[in-house]
Amino acid sequence: MRVVVWNENRHEKLNENVASIYPEGIHGAIKSFLQTNDVEVRTATLDDENHGLSEELLKETDVLIWWGHLAHDEVNDNIVQLVHENVLNGMGLIVLHSGHFSKIFKKLMGTSCDLKWREANEKERIWVMDPTHPIAEGVGEYFELQEEEMYGEHFDIPTPDELIFVSWFEGGEVFRSGCTFKRGHGKVFYFRPGHEAYPTYYDKNVQQVIKNAVKWAKPVNRPLATYGNAKPLEKLDEVKENE
Amino acid sequence: MRVVVWNENRHEKLNENVASIYPEGIHGAIKSFLQTNDVEVRTATLDDENHGLSEELLKETDVLIWWGHLAHDEVNDNIVQLVHENVLNGMGLIVLHSGHFSKIFKKLMGTSCDLKWREANEKERIWVMDPTHPIAEGVGEYFELQEEEMYGEHFDIPTPDELIFVSWFEGGEVFRSGCTFKRGHGKVFYFRPGHEAYPTYYDKNVQQVIKNAVKWAKPVNRPLATYGNAKPLEKLDEVKENE
Amino acid sequence: MRVVVWNENRHEKLNENVASIYPEGIHGAIKSFLQTNDVEVRTATLDDENHGLSEELLKETDVLIWWGHLAHDEVNDNIVQLVHENVLNGMGLIVLHSGHFSKIFKKLMGTSCDLKWREANEKERIWVMDPTHPIAEGVGEYFELQEEEMYGEHFDIPTPDELIFVSWFEGGEVFRSGCTFKRGHGKVFYFRPGHEAYPTYYDKNVQQVIKNAVKWAKPVNRPLATYGNAKPLEKLDEVKENE
Amino acid sequence: MRVVVWNENRHEKLNENVASIYPEGIHGAIKSFLQTNDVEVRTATLDDENHGLSEELLKETDVLIWWGHLAHDEVNDNIVQLVHENVLNGMGLIVLHSGHFSKIFKKLMGTSCDLKWREANEKERIWVMDPTHPIAEGVGEYFELQEEEMYGEHFDIPTPDELIFVSWFEGGEVFRSGCTFKRGHGKVFYFRPGHEAYPTYYDKNVQQVIKNAVKWAKPVNRPLATYGNAKPLEKLDEVKENE
Repeated sequence: MRVVVWNENRHEKLNENVASIYPEGIHGAIKSFLQTNDVEVRTATLDDENHGLSEELLKETDVLIWWGHLAHDEVNDNIVQLVHENVLNGMGLIVLHSGHFSKIFKKLMGTSCDLKWREANEKERIWVMDPTHPIAEGVGEYFELQEEEMYGEHFDIPTPDELIFVSWFEGGEVFRSGCTFKRGHGKVFYFRPGHEAYPTYYDKNVQQVIKNAVKWAKPVNRPLATYGNAKPLEKLDEVKENE
Repeated sequence: MRVVVWNENRHEKLNENVASIYPEGIHGAIKSFLQTNDVEVRTATLDDENHGLSEELLKETDVLIWWGHLAHDEVNDNIVQLVHENVLNGMGLIVLHSGHFSKIFKKLMGTSCDLKWREANEKERIWVMDPTHPIAEGVGEYFELQEEEMYGEHFDIPTPDELIFVSWFEGGEVFRSGCTFKRGHGKVFYFRPGHEAYPTYYDKNVQQVIKNAVKWAKPVNRPLATYGNAKPLEKLDEVKENE
Repeated sequence: MRVVVWNENRHEKLNENVASIYPEGIHGAIKSFLQTNDVEVRTATLDDENHGLSEELLKETDVLIWWGHLAHDEVNDNIVQLVHENVLNGMGLIVLHSGHFSKIFKKLMGTSCDLKWREANEKERIWVMDPTHPIAEGVGEYFELQEEEMYGEHFDIPTPDELIFVSWFEGGEVFRSGCTFKRGHGKVFYFRPGHEAYPTYYDKNVQQVIKNAVKWAKPVNRPLATYGNAKPLEKLDEVKENE
Repeated sequence: MRVVVWNENRHEKLNENVASIYPEGIHGAIKSFLQTNDVEVRTATLDDENHGLSEELLKETDVLIWWGHLAHDEVNDNIVQLVHENVLNGMGLIVLHSGHFSKIFKKLMGTSCDLKWREANEKERIWVMDPTHPIAEGVGEYFELQEEEMYGEHFDIPTPDELIFVSWFEGGEVFRSGCTFKRGHGKVFYFRPGHEAYPTYYDKNVQQVIKNAVKWAKPVNRPLATYGNAKPLEKLDEVKENE
């Protein structure tokens, strides 16, 4: 299993508080809990050449994790196109938190992906809606983050294929915090938590969910569909065919 | 109810056979069965100025119907953007047949929208999968088109919100022929039949489905969602908020 | 349009507070806002003969509304069977609040329909998840009920076909408060609010939702599916057929 | 992983042709390709004591496979209740072919589960609708069974959570042949092929799908939800609470 964690990595450079929470970057924090004997994790960031994402790397990537916020617009459209093609060809994609506004997520969703938000250090309680789902494995009925940014409905996404988590916020909002989507041969998971100013990616439940999601999102081993002009599989009425 | 039927209208100009089947264009044929006292229908075509689609027209359009095939690439990206915004703001969209490859449908789906196809005058039998759906009103368990182009799976679309029709083809394929999708505040219906070389839009069942779809796709009367920074609706823990 | 409002009508007889809120019974309150020139509303209650639900009445009923709580077990299994058959044949069903534990809802869902609950006069804020849905017509981004019983997740229902509302509760829970389900040829809507000790059914938003749901749930006009042994629609390979 | 294959095992006793195709019974044939070092397979049949299904056995079963046809009515309601409870508590259930009419499947679906059928040795071509799904792993775009019983739409089931396969039949019908459903904490997969008079369970693709489904259906490791009266997780407004 080969995973790439992509991070914008700008807050970490611009903001001391964020840098102190994530001294190795958000990508580094995520890598550190994902890496195991079975999961090889590489990282890539916006300021790397080609954002660290080459055609070769993506081709051999099972699951790509995406965190961005300040600089969605700086992501090159060709790279977005490349990631998009790889998702349609089977690569899993996990979009975290403010990645809801990334070019790749908006392109895959076809909607604005807009939402309500508020930074007020408020409590988030994440409830499991789908107790059958492997992404909820090892997680209780709910888990809490003592301080997070609020994201509130309406979240402008297509109807998710599966709704796994819904968040309750202290300030009165709710949010579909864990959603799956199928696109082409690829699986996409959106997971809400992870504002840069909080130590969210050190939370054991958040880590568990991301680890589960990586397993869930990996491609299935089967041939890609063929498209275009197709010969009939059954004998057609010849008269009509030659009409 | 205000409907706009948009048609590429190129086959009708380039091909005598198509012109003889649809002397008023495919848009004219669709308009003629949709227009009633309650439904005002206008038409617009690719070669009209701005493809016949202005900001003002779309703002007052309840449902837009889209047929295109040869010249998807000639549709101006700004117009696609405009249609997209209107769908997210509530305008219904009905995409017909080869419109699966239109820019607007691909943008709303987020996938390639590719499929298998074959022109062999073969029989299509369209089965109702969802007997509860208003788009299937007045339609029997199935209906047949004696000659149509084949479209076959895999059809590269996101999981439809609702699967209303599945086609059986003489040559051995199946196809999800009637699919609904929600995008933003708008409803989208894809309906497969309608190759330009066959008199499909004169078929009573096809007409019934399109009439039903127009009713189904019309916007609901409610305020648009608000997005962005949001004040709390409940009193927050002040200590934490001012942290 | 013919609607039947079925109510257990026991709290109203046993509890003065409930009787003072709903002097005509919950069924009477619902009837009073549903009845119009276009909608004929009848009521039926548990203690009526055959619970007020005959084969003839149900056959000519477009939508049945169901409120029950104390005496689910007293509902005769034959009547449950009759309602079930009518739903499969196209009759709409709207299940309110504590009706989640009714025999008919459990039979249609196939699950326990269990949930968390608390009576603590707490605030409920009902958020619209699906801004395209006709059941949300005329409703803002959210509406509030100042005092309601809490229902909390996990709500043991199958994945809803559509998730229209999610509730936020003061005590920290969330709940899928507006859910649609298709069963056979019939449409089912579950709507959470309506504890007997609060004047919930006088709330304008609650009334609007129920009025919308009645319109949405009405049967579509088409023949019922036929089941059982079926002759081939295409010529089969005779050798194989007679094998 | 512990799997139980339950088979009615009556055709095998009553019909020489079936007995010659499945000398160890359909359960034996399924066991023989499922059993591996990682998967322990037991079998149980209708005529075993308590149909071979005890409380203890089911408690330690990860996935139950169900084949029945002639004698659905002979299955004891208490056993059906027991299987139902185990599914809601997380046990996976795979229902094969004529099991669509089993008590347990109808109870979990809440519908009639009726369909069209025909025994005419006709060809079935099973198309993959969902190329992302682990149940389709190792399977091409479609696979064929040269002779099978026809099942045709409308199939009276709730909207599946996922539609993985759709069948094309020589005689002109289509069918949703691979469907997933979530019920409580358990996952359910319905798979169409497997008429007793054909050697379907020796087909490599059919075997692959069932092997995949067993992996997919296994319970996730997490606590069961708690239901009933619940203390608030947040401080409530005391005045209102004591009202």
